[in-house]
Amino acid sequence: MSQQGIRVFVTGGTFDKEYDELTGRLFFKDTHLPEMLRLARCRAPLALQVLMMMDSLDMTDADRGRIVAACRDCAEGRVVVTHGTDTMVETARALLAAGVGKTVVLTGAMVPYAFGSSDGLFNLGSALSFAQVLPPGVYVAMNGRVFPGDRVRKDRERGIFEDAP
Amino acid sequence: MSQQGIRVFVTGGTFDKEYDELTGRLFFKDTHLPEMLRLARCRAPLALQVLMMMDSLDMTDADRGRIVAACRDCAEGRVVVTHGTDTMVETARALLAAGVGKTVVLTGAMVPYAFGSSDGLFNLGSALSFAQVLPPGVYVAMNGRVFPGDRVRKDRERGIFEDAP
Amino acid sequence: MSQQGIRVFVTGGTFDKEYDELTGRLFFKDTHLPEMLRLARCRAPLALQVLMMMDSLDMTDADRGRIVAACRDCAEGRVVVTHGTDTMVETARALLAAGVGKTVVLTGAMVPYAFGSSDGLFNLGSALSFAQVLPPGVYVAMNGRVFPGDRVRKDRERGIFEDAP
Amino acid sequence: MSQQGIRVFVTGGTFDKEYDELTGRLFFKDTHLPEMLRLARCRAPLALQVLMMMDSLDMTDADRGRIVAACRDCAEGRVVVTHGTDTMVETARALLAAGVGKTVVLTGAMVPYAFGSSDGLFNLGSALSFAQVLPPGVYVAMNGRVFPGDRVRKDRERGIFEDAP
Repeated sequence: MSQQGIRVFVTGGTFDKEYDELTGRLFFKDTHLPEMLRLARCRAPLALQVLMMMDSLDMTDADRGRIVAACRDCAEGRVVVTHGTDTMVETARALLAAGVGKTVVLTGAMVPYAFGSSDGLFNLGSALSFAQVLPPGVYVAMNGRVFPGDRVRKDRERGIFEDAP
Repeated sequence: MSQQGIRVFVTGGTFDKEYDELTGRLFFKDTHLPEMLRLARCRAPLALQVLMMMDSLDMTDADRGRIVAACRDCAEGRVVVTHGTDTMVETARALLAAGVGKTVVLTGAMVPYAFGSSDGLFNLGSALSFAQVLPPGVYVAMNGRVFPGDRVRKDRERGIFEDAP
Repeated sequence: MSQQGIRVFVTGGTFDKEYDELTGRLFFKDTHLPEMLRLARCRAPLALQVLMMMDSLDMTDADRGRIVAACRDCAEGRVVVTHGTDTMVETARALLAAGVGKTVVLTGAMVPYAFGSSDGLFNLGSALSFAQVLPPGVYVAMNGRVFPGDRVRKDRERGIFEDAP
Repeated sequence: MSQQGIRVFVTGGTFDKEYDELTGRLFFKDTHLPEMLRLARCRAPLALQVLMMMDSLDMTDADRGRIVAACRDCAEGRVVVTHGTDTMVETARALLAAGVGKTVVLTGAMVPYAFGSSDGLFNLGSALSFAQVLPPGVYVAMNGRVFPGDRVRKDRERGIFEDAP
């Protein structure tokens, strides 16, 4: 119910992939987050910032370091990070290790928004909601659930997130 | 983070309206919730139940009574109600007056899902998330925000929900 | 294969209906034709002109007279008219009676484009194609078929166009 | 206006590509043609047959030979071939060289149907329409236009088909 602001950091991932009709390949251009928030009629107080636009399989430690620093240094106490699903858990671990002392929720999509992704919109609504009410900590919001950042894994065979022991 | 189940009651509303290509009018057929949850890759533990399929402007006190009874009588302690936006606030008030002692989150959509509604998917993700973490009470989840059921109004001119004094 | 231009007259119809999220009703705002042609990567030489934006059930003889005059008076010898399906056949008859001496193809949609109408895009592609190759005459292009304007009827029970005796 | 049947041969191409959410790559599964024709409310008399499901860049002379044979040997005098755009012109040339003596129209899409391709539906409507009225010959129907198979090229920089000298 908090009306304090949320910072949304965009890092790319499937969420934002597009189809290049000249090459037939997927690529990144601009983020779709502003359009998604507009269509969602979202009025949660938030500030959107693009940190990077990349496939999370290509993220280096330095990239993760930038995400950690951005989460730590922003003015808001509540943060959503859009992220590729393949290494979302690694970034959650990096945020946990850094101890940013804020509510940070990572989310992503299995299907690009530009391809009619239903999970992207659903997950965005989910992540923004969890971010508004959960206590400080690092979380992954996927599949309509929320997981503590240190107890989650992606099952790549099935394409879902689940509890990790 | 609770993994206890959520009951989702469908009551109709814009969410579930369809276009009748023979008459050119909007109507209700089946709920789109199962398809929406499937496309969203939702794996939150939930049970879906259709209570009614109606425009919320047509809801009577008896209809609202059925919604209240369903929320009170179901086994789950966490409930999401999909509802037309026009009288969502009245149903929230009825639930508050009845004192169901559970976490009940009402949500809806401004645009039918069948018409490519982005807010429906977003709101569904939002409502299911708030329902999992908020303490007992009655809430409205719309526009990426959550409102206590007794301090919310719909601004019909602008088509948004906002704090009521 | 003709590369002479095509005039496209927009008259409204289901094609162009939109959902008004404030009232929950269908209404006309701007035509979607330019967006549809852009997404279709259409490069047929054409000039688009909005004649009216109305439900074809509301068309008067005067409205039909305006359509006839527009078809007759435009510079192009090939014309596509987007039109509501309910009285498309009546307008075809009016065009036939007037004897415009051009290739005029009427088309429409059963589902609004804004609601993810697949038939609108398909029918537009169909009508523009028939218009480029058929000899002078008045035609209705619907359901992937083309009908002479004087031997077609809409089966309102089934929502399809068929041969009329 | 002919009501004789049309044979539609599916060969794959961008038309039918899907997004594999487990690998993040594009792939072929089943053809979307039946769904597209259903959503288009298409009632043209046609028989659909999947010849192959492949990227046209991977087509060999043998694959093209199969397409030529299928067009020549089918019962219908009017044929539509869905095809990847990259080598559509080569297949048109192979059909011309073989002299099948029928009306054969090749078409494709720049964006996969599964990604909300508007050009796929538009082009399908266009190809089916041209196939019904053009005299025997080999044609490419793209961008809302129709080209003789021996006087067309794809401009890969711009992703459009145009007249070839």
